[in-house]
Amino acid sequence: MATELDRQHAWLTHEELGEVRGRVPILYVVAVPVRVDANGAVNRVGLLLRVSDTGTMERELVAGRVLYHERIRDALLRHLEKDLGAVALPQVPASPTPFTVAEFFPTPGVTAFHDPRQHAVALCFIVPVAGDTAPQQDSLELAWLTPHEAASTDVAAEMAGGHGALLRQALAHLGHAL
Amino acid sequence: MATELDRQHAWLTHEELGEVRGRVPILYVVAVPVRVDANGAVNRVGLLLRVSDTGTMERELVAGRVLYHERIRDALLRHLEKDLGAVALPQVPASPTPFTVAEFFPTPGVTAFHDPRQHAVALCFIVPVAGDTAPQQDSLELAWLTPHEAASTDVAAEMAGGHGALLRQALAHLGHAL
Amino acid sequence: MATELDRQHAWLTHEELGEVRGRVPILYVVAVPVRVDANGAVNRVGLLLRVSDTGTMERELVAGRVLYHERIRDALLRHLEKDLGAVALPQVPASPTPFTVAEFFPTPGVTAFHDPRQHAVALCFIVPVAGDTAPQQDSLELAWLTPHEAASTDVAAEMAGGHGALLRQALAHLGHAL
Amino acid sequence: MATELDRQHAWLTHEELGEVRGRVPILYVVAVPVRVDANGAVNRVGLLLRVSDTGTMERELVAGRVLYHERIRDALLRHLEKDLGAVALPQVPASPTPFTVAEFFPTPGVTAFHDPRQHAVALCFIVPVAGDTAPQQDSLELAWLTPHEAASTDVAAEMAGGHGALLRQALAHLGHAL
Repeated sequence: MATELDRQHAWLTHEELGEVRGRVPILYVVAVPVRVDANGAVNRVGLLLRVSDTGTMERELVAGRVLYHERIRDALLRHLEKDLGAVALPQVPASPTPFTVAEFFPTPGVTAFHDPRQHAVALCFIVPVAGDTAPQQDSLELAWLTPHEAASTDVAAEMAGGHGALLRQALAHLGHAL
Repeated sequence: MATELDRQHAWLTHEELGEVRGRVPILYVVAVPVRVDANGAVNRVGLLLRVSDTGTMERELVAGRVLYHERIRDALLRHLEKDLGAVALPQVPASPTPFTVAEFFPTPGVTAFHDPRQHAVALCFIVPVAGDTAPQQDSLELAWLTPHEAASTDVAAEMAGGHGALLRQALAHLGHAL
Repeated sequence: MATELDRQHAWLTHEELGEVRGRVPILYVVAVPVRVDANGAVNRVGLLLRVSDTGTMERELVAGRVLYHERIRDALLRHLEKDLGAVALPQVPASPTPFTVAEFFPTPGVTAFHDPRQHAVALCFIVPVAGDTAPQQDSLELAWLTPHEAASTDVAAEMAGGHGALLRQALAHLGHAL
Repeated sequence: MATELDRQHAWLTHEELGEVRGRVPILYVVAVPVRVDANGAVNRVGLLLRVSDTGTMERELVAGRVLYHERIRDALLRHLEKDLGAVALPQVPASPTPFTVAEFFPTPGVTAFHDPRQHAVALCFIVPVAGDTAPQQDSLELAWLTPHEAASTDVAAEMAGGHGALLRQALAHLGHAL
């Protein structure tokens, strides 16, 4: 299925995507990868370390577009595999309800989130990861922080694209005291 | 704001919308209008009665597209005003988290929901309505059913486009015993 | 920890528990055990088959009291182990938010749920189970039904104590079309 | 109904309550009072200012016990009326699902929340308030802060009993960037 989707994706050239982006909100998924202990409590949060377009180091969550004719759960798995590798064994939630919905506007200030490229709506999920992870593609590292470390404002400051706010919303949803 | 959005919407001709629909998932909102008692408990659920394209009578929830550069909460208000009138006083939830997310596929059987026109993703909300409602446009009637009546399989059978399933999911979320 | 809790539990004789039950609401947890496929989608729901006090066969969810000084997550694990065995490998959700809260009243009709023994408040969770299950104690069988089978009104009719309603609320929360 | 509940409550003397508190978890509700604009977005959060037992000034959320044979929604209304007055017109959510569940243990460190008096489990709700509020009883003031003000760590530091953490979890659930 992934290959068929990739083909469809290939049909959407950068120009075409740019055109669509100015006409409708674009659907995204965001995954907060976590490690859980034997009781199901989160003891680590996974953050990607990437070199941004401007050459600075940035921490990131797993995020990406939902393609045409792709289920949300399959989009989550595709982006998790792309960023964490093929043997991460992510446990995508059984329920379709996200822990939050983030609205990114090209105009700053409409909502708490801003994306100069587009109007994007991101469905955000916390995803326990049971297997081995290996940073892929342009990621330098996947750092597993404790919830306490992840909740620090220093970490949030290193995250662009509203990911710091989403990480803290995820920690709050997990019952962590920010 | 509605008029500006309508203008933007006018820019997207039927042909253009058709083209976009084959390329990306289209974002929708669904609202289940309810009446609540003084304690906040739901005592009525509002269903629209409409003549379908094929001439049969159908019951419907409030539903529609989220436009480019429109907040989810503004899309909900726009569709509620369009269907229930200008003085319905809908209380759109403070939190952005929907009670469910429904994925409609042009191919039947991929998920529980099917839409031959497009791949649509609907964020679904329960919306208490405090004011006076008047069915608008092509709606013949707005019927306020008790949760017990709304939960009947007869009512669900009169609803097309997966709205019967979404209504029952809303009732379940409200704690109703189906 | 379980043994210490059992000891504390032992300190609460039946008479003492009866006394407390008439004074405060008693906190319960309910778990809906499920099997998920590689994508995280639920493909089976687990129901216990038990002989009731009156000698009839009844289907049941996993349910039980939260003890003094016991975390909700530990109460879920204790009751799941008691009913499904020690190697069921239940994945208790990372978030403390239940999919629903059911209020059982000794007086019928106050809410949708009734418990002649007490006023009980149950926090309800969907729990994926990855390991082997073996019915324990007084359970005759653990049946793994498809979501479609579990959603049938016949199955709900075989469940006492409001468990049929909770099962259907869980399926609705999972996005199943009831 | 309140008077009957008060009578039942009166039957539970301080000694009796103390005895029950050492035997079972005690069920609480917490309400975060908010003001919403015409679109349903939160623009103010209400915090009580109270003199603590030790004579210091503390900010607080609305919180209290669920009594025997009292519905969660009625407990919320009773505590809101007690703290905000009789004409606050709180809109208790239609759904029984709390935005979080906080577990308070008499032993520090078991969870993020600590209550030296008891093991308490609090179901937490965000409650829009539409009417006039007047601080009652031992409250000196009800301050309406913007979400931005309420999210400051200074405010959280003025709140005891874990209320600062619950306030920030509520803001995160509302989509606020902490």
